[in-house]
Amino acid sequence: MKYGFSERVKFMKSSAVRDILKVINQGNVISFAGGLPEEELFPISAVDQAFHKAITTNNKALQYGETEGVAALRLALAERMKKKGLTRDPKDILVTSGSQQAIDLFSRVMFNKGDIILTENPTYLAAIQVFESYETKVVAVESDDNGMVLADLEEKIIKLKPKCIYVVPTYSNPTGKVWSLERRLKLLELANRYHVVIFEDDPYGELQFDQQAAPPSIASLDENDLVLYTSTFSKTVVPAMRIGWIVGPHQIIRIMAQAKQATDLHTNSVSQHALVHLLNDFDIDKHIQTIRDTYFERMLVMKELLDTVKLEGLEYMEPKGGMFFWVTLPKSINTTELLDIAVKEGVAYVPGAPFYVSNPELNTMRLNFTNSSPNLIREGMEKLAKVLERANLRL
Amino acid sequence: MKYGFSERVKFMKSSAVRDILKVINQGNVISFAGGLPEEELFPISAVDQAFHKAITTNNKALQYGETEGVAALRLALAERMKKKGLTRDPKDILVTSGSQQAIDLFSRVMFNKGDIILTENPTYLAAIQVFESYETKVVAVESDDNGMVLADLEEKIIKLKPKCIYVVPTYSNPTGKVWSLERRLKLLELANRYHVVIFEDDPYGELQFDQQAAPPSIASLDENDLVLYTSTFSKTVVPAMRIGWIVGPHQIIRIMAQAKQATDLHTNSVSQHALVHLLNDFDIDKHIQTIRDTYFERMLVMKELLDTVKLEGLEYMEPKGGMFFWVTLPKSINTTELLDIAVKEGVAYVPGAPFYVSNPELNTMRLNFTNSSPNLIREGMEKLAKVLERANLRL
Repeated sequence: MKYGFSERVKFMKSSAVRDILKVINQGNVISFAGGLPEEELFPISAVDQAFHKAITTNNKALQYGETEGVAALRLALAERMKKKGLTRDPKDILVTSGSQQAIDLFSRVMFNKGDIILTENPTYLAAIQVFESYETKVVAVESDDNGMVLADLEEKIIKLKPKCIYVVPTYSNPTGKVWSLERRLKLLELANRYHVVIFEDDPYGELQFDQQAAPPSIASLDENDLVLYTSTFSKTVVPAMRIGWIVGPHQIIRIMAQAKQATDLHTNSVSQHALVHLLNDFDIDKHIQTIRDTYFERMLVMKELLDTVKLEGLEYMEPKGGMFFWVTLPKSINTTELLDIAVKEGVAYVPGAPFYVSNPELNTMRLNFTNSSPNLIREGMEKLAKVLERANLRL
Repeated sequence: MKYGFSERVKFMKSSAVRDILKVINQGNVISFAGGLPEEELFPISAVDQAFHKAITTNNKALQYGETEGVAALRLALAERMKKKGLTRDPKDILVTSGSQQAIDLFSRVMFNKGDIILTENPTYLAAIQVFESYETKVVAVESDDNGMVLADLEEKIIKLKPKCIYVVPTYSNPTGKVWSLERRLKLLELANRYHVVIFEDDPYGELQFDQQAAPPSIASLDENDLVLYTSTFSKTVVPAMRIGWIVGPHQIIRIMAQAKQATDLHTNSVSQHALVHLLNDFDIDKHIQTIRDTYFERMLVMKELLDTVKLEGLEYMEPKGGMFFWVTLPKSINTTELLDIAVKEGVAYVPGAPFYVSNPELNTMRLNFTNSSPNLIREGMEKLAKVLERANLRL
């Protein structure tokens, strides 16, 4: 039988990264491609105890729950955010099935066909995918090491009247960039002047390497109910729980909860109750410090090896946190074409092109340093160096 | 700030049932309103052990997983369905965050604005809500005790060219009805003749009271790749896990998986792995038999008390499974208006009106018998009988 699909299927793309991962996972390849946290760091025993408590303490906890999320978890989230300067009532929080769902539900209640969304370029590719699946137009704003270039941003706001500005301002995926405080404040000023909503995606904010933290979240600087802020426990506890949250203006959160009700009734509440116990009984901040230290060490190992690659024109910025190096190669090297050769040599990365909204730079790649041990990073980077040096010679 | 929402927000409705539940849960009310399984029957110890095993056996299981679902779970689902005559390859299965998400993802990839969906009347209200949120038109087909009336169905197929026929053919919500084998086969014949997809929603199929099972699922009778079949573990294990699945033509399942990737990456895989262990280590069929026996007993208690209500014109059909009585009262009684009085008297139900696609019968109500003990059922039904008898006298 021939099936008639919806028009919106045409605007759905499969994730380039997830498709690449499927291929890579089949072989014996050292992968810098995924955005995976290190499994060895999962707090297994604490997670085990938290689930045990959640399951055995109160059988009402295993019943259907509220769409907005488990009340005790929303309270705990409000308290955690408050410590970081983001003060919001628990009723302004919606617990989601990972922060990916926050992006989707927000899109569902906000965007009509043809709406404009401004983003950095490159940016988180799965956000672009969600936005485009709602038949919106995603437009790139120029950016530099400190964030979006404000002149270009203002010009595009005036000209295009965007519905939303999407940013990953802290240890961004894919570039590892951190927006300066000044840019954060100016972004808010422009958003307020022109009445544009900001969507702040912050999955990596906890993963800082410096003693000095990144500037405060944009949401915590917002005085005009302009910002939706989303984060997740996928990088700080375990991804398999799929627990994220979004906080922001109650009017938007309330409508998103209504959309969520139709989508999946509510987020897995075994995991929500387990998280409540974990946050009470386990020193998650100490655990996060261990993650930071481990990732910082791995980042330094990768940096050291990047520095030994004999390739004029190779550039990167040392990340101050997060999970990725963003590497620019000489213009002559197309990283999408090179990937096959790299995989054959036993090392993988993600080509940079899919992260671009427009004008992809084909000579870029994203390298993850969190999911491989220092020894594997060394081994993989030696392979990658060879691949790059040979590619350069051939050209 | 004033926010500009999407057009589709206008087509979103909050669930009448969930809104009612919020009110009821605040007071000291015996509730026959929800569709909740009995918490006392949750297999706590088996669930606890299954999660313990899932969390401690393999830390890769706590990493990001495949969008389609955990391979071992899809295999186990294929085996379970095969025993019930529904033979499908694991690759034709998508694990979802409850069967509610299966309805939503299916809608997302299939429906355009203005598409027609045929349903029974009344039917599962949260399905109507999802369909309408995609700006479709849901049209009711006449039905009787055995399922849809085929003449009306064929006429509407020819006249309206529907995209899909949505059915809950086994112990349906809200009516408790079971489609006869003949109607199931004829539905397939019509769907095949006119090339219409069938969506079979089967959350209650396991909850049979008779020795004799209901007729086979429509999906298991399908020889032409016409049927999408969805079910869930919410009624047989615990709802809080939010694990459902959908099985059907690979072409549709594949596109739904792509939509799911953008929606929430994948379903909570701690719970998926736990379910794999539960299905291996625990006699779930024996457990389901205990659930059946308990619910059957409660249904009989409620029936006995329904029979004592002194109200000419009160009608119901004894359910052969599932969780609900569907009660029709004299035309003069409006159950929506009566609910306030009932709640004040300490008993609650769901008015029938929201379950109707069109022409709601205002003198209907849905009574749940699974979430109250026999004693509470007696107490609540005595209160309800008084409320009904007095309402009748006043009119």
